[in-house]
Amino acid sequence: MKREVYTFSPGPCIFPLDVLQETQSQIRSETESVLEYSNGSPKAKQLVQEVTALFKETLQIPDNFTFLISCGGATNQFATIPYNLLDSAESTGSYIVNGTWSELAFKECKSIGKAHLCNPEQPRKQWTYAPTLKESSVPKDSKYLYYCDNETVHGIEFPQPPDSFGLPLATDMTSNFLTRPVDFSKFGVVYSGAQKNWGPAGLVIAIVRNDLLERKGLADKPFVMDYKAELKTNAEGKNIPIFALALARNTLKWIQRNGGLQSMDRLAKAKAKLIYDVIDASNGFYVNKVRREHRSRVNIVCQLCGNDETLTKLFIKEAAKSGLVQLGGHKSVGGLRFSIYNGMPVDGVERLRAFMIDFQKSHENRPKL
Amino acid sequence: MKREVYTFSPGPCIFPLDVLQETQSQIRSETESVLEYSNGSPKAKQLVQEVTALFKETLQIPDNFTFLISCGGATNQFATIPYNLLDSAESTGSYIVNGTWSELAFKECKSIGKAHLCNPEQPRKQWTYAPTLKESSVPKDSKYLYYCDNETVHGIEFPQPPDSFGLPLATDMTSNFLTRPVDFSKFGVVYSGAQKNWGPAGLVIAIVRNDLLERKGLADKPFVMDYKAELKTNAEGKNIPIFALALARNTLKWIQRNGGLQSMDRLAKAKAKLIYDVIDASNGFYVNKVRREHRSRVNIVCQLCGNDETLTKLFIKEAAKSGLVQLGGHKSVGGLRFSIYNGMPVDGVERLRAFMIDFQKSHENRPKL
Repeated sequence: MKREVYTFSPGPCIFPLDVLQETQSQIRSETESVLEYSNGSPKAKQLVQEVTALFKETLQIPDNFTFLISCGGATNQFATIPYNLLDSAESTGSYIVNGTWSELAFKECKSIGKAHLCNPEQPRKQWTYAPTLKESSVPKDSKYLYYCDNETVHGIEFPQPPDSFGLPLATDMTSNFLTRPVDFSKFGVVYSGAQKNWGPAGLVIAIVRNDLLERKGLADKPFVMDYKAELKTNAEGKNIPIFALALARNTLKWIQRNGGLQSMDRLAKAKAKLIYDVIDASNGFYVNKVRREHRSRVNIVCQLCGNDETLTKLFIKEAAKSGLVQLGGHKSVGGLRFSIYNGMPVDGVERLRAFMIDFQKSHENRPKL
Repeated sequence: MKREVYTFSPGPCIFPLDVLQETQSQIRSETESVLEYSNGSPKAKQLVQEVTALFKETLQIPDNFTFLISCGGATNQFATIPYNLLDSAESTGSYIVNGTWSELAFKECKSIGKAHLCNPEQPRKQWTYAPTLKESSVPKDSKYLYYCDNETVHGIEFPQPPDSFGLPLATDMTSNFLTRPVDFSKFGVVYSGAQKNWGPAGLVIAIVRNDLLERKGLADKPFVMDYKAELKTNAEGKNIPIFALALARNTLKWIQRNGGLQSMDRLAKAKAKLIYDVIDASNGFYVNKVRREHRSRVNIVCQLCGNDETLTKLFIKEAAKSGLVQLGGHKSVGGLRFSIYNGMPVDGVERLRAFMIDFQKSHENRPKL
């Protein structure tokens, strides 16, 4: 069995074929399909325990952190973080905004409490780097410092977590989660939606330092956005998207079989290099504007010949004929975007690389618009 | 292929085998698995449109209602309803509370606005009927009247919607949705989590009358609990649990193939009668305390010999040996509960009926505790 089509979609992700096969076999059974595990049943509880243990082992999560599962996308954490980490509508969350997702999280905090922007000097919508903050940019009385570890729309990744000047760091790791080891000593909350590297759309997990979990948070918050309530329902195997968890389990086992996070990181770097090398050797046919040390290993954005729309459309159309799909950039920025998550095999990236080289050969002498 | 085990779980539900088979075949493919449809892609949009059309057709939803999809369980609507239908924290939602789920929804409203209890005369936790309200019990300035059409824990179902005295009726139809036709002229909002009759855990839909959708709601609400934001993301095929929707589509097609909602209702009544007849003919060996006309067609609760715990445990254990599982009542009430949703074949119910009759024969002369 081989793939005929490779999807470079920004999410949901492409899955390894053996993960899909294992998941498929768990759906139908003469006894009890994984889709039918009862809310709160021993099987549901066991699945939660198994997935939690796999995450703890794979990520080496220290004992002073708690692993929480909930329904929804990363978007639900945009509100969940301020609801649980602020202590009143008058208290402040500080935000680094360097892309679409951190901007949305920042906006959401504003509707719950006070939100402070730490990097106003960075031109909005023109994001090309992961900023370094000065201590004076972060109010000391902030309840946390928030940032997004990898901005999928703009292809920007923090090479390491920013200095948080003693504040708990709350981090959206949705798009690069499980692609490299995480040093939890630097974090307060790490969360990730499943649909990039480890599961289907509709599941999100948060890994919360226990002292932050003990914060009271805002008095009035929706039940499904209350970390303490989640802790309880998780333990009971309740209110969880069972099938999504089963798929996550299968993916985590695949990561472990394939060498764990060190190996995922090496692979991510190697796959990204295959594409960035073509971009950098293209004499401006392909352009990536992200500061080199902040280039994402998993979302590679580029523009074609000064963002030539006709040529970009042709690239996408021709590539689809070769089985390479979902290559368009986010509509807010245009151009091309190649999302290369854990599940994308090297073979797919090599085919994309070859296509890019061929496409340039056929079109580089085209008169500029 | 035949089932060896029938799960009478209160949810997630048992699925028809051909729905499971069709879903399984959509997971793995050489081209693009349904799990890999990109957020906002044409395929995701098409899936939303297809599922919406199937619901509209199956339920005959009038044009003045809008169909909305979101991640999560019914629980997320507990907050979403007041966030969207109240106009300030000082305005009131009125609630009928006659079981665990309406009680939780009532509590959640209290943390967002004012919540009025319309039936305080009904003893809390001892719910055995669907109350009829007097007009004086419902404040005229309430923004809506909320109730739960079928209370799964207590096995109580409204035979028809309560009089709402001109207020929009907001209804949790999670556990009996798609088991009978719905007269939308009586409703303002109808919502349902998928995991009982039509999909996996982690998907919930709301069908909202357009004049209510136009309400501003509370100014500050989480993005994922804003009906208007959902309307937009749904149209774009974004922020939706793709796989869950695909399974819902397969189930809706199965409902249509099997005669639609009239047929589901007939079948639900026939299956429920098979069990209630045994209870009623048991001379008090099996007892159901729900007012007869409010007995749920889909969640049948009963107690064994004055709620004899030892005998109840034996019943559950022996039944499991016969392939009949998840028969225990909710821990808050004990006893037995048989959940018989659309996906439960008549064969499973007949096996349960036969087991109940046999069990009584073997144990009815047992000395009472």
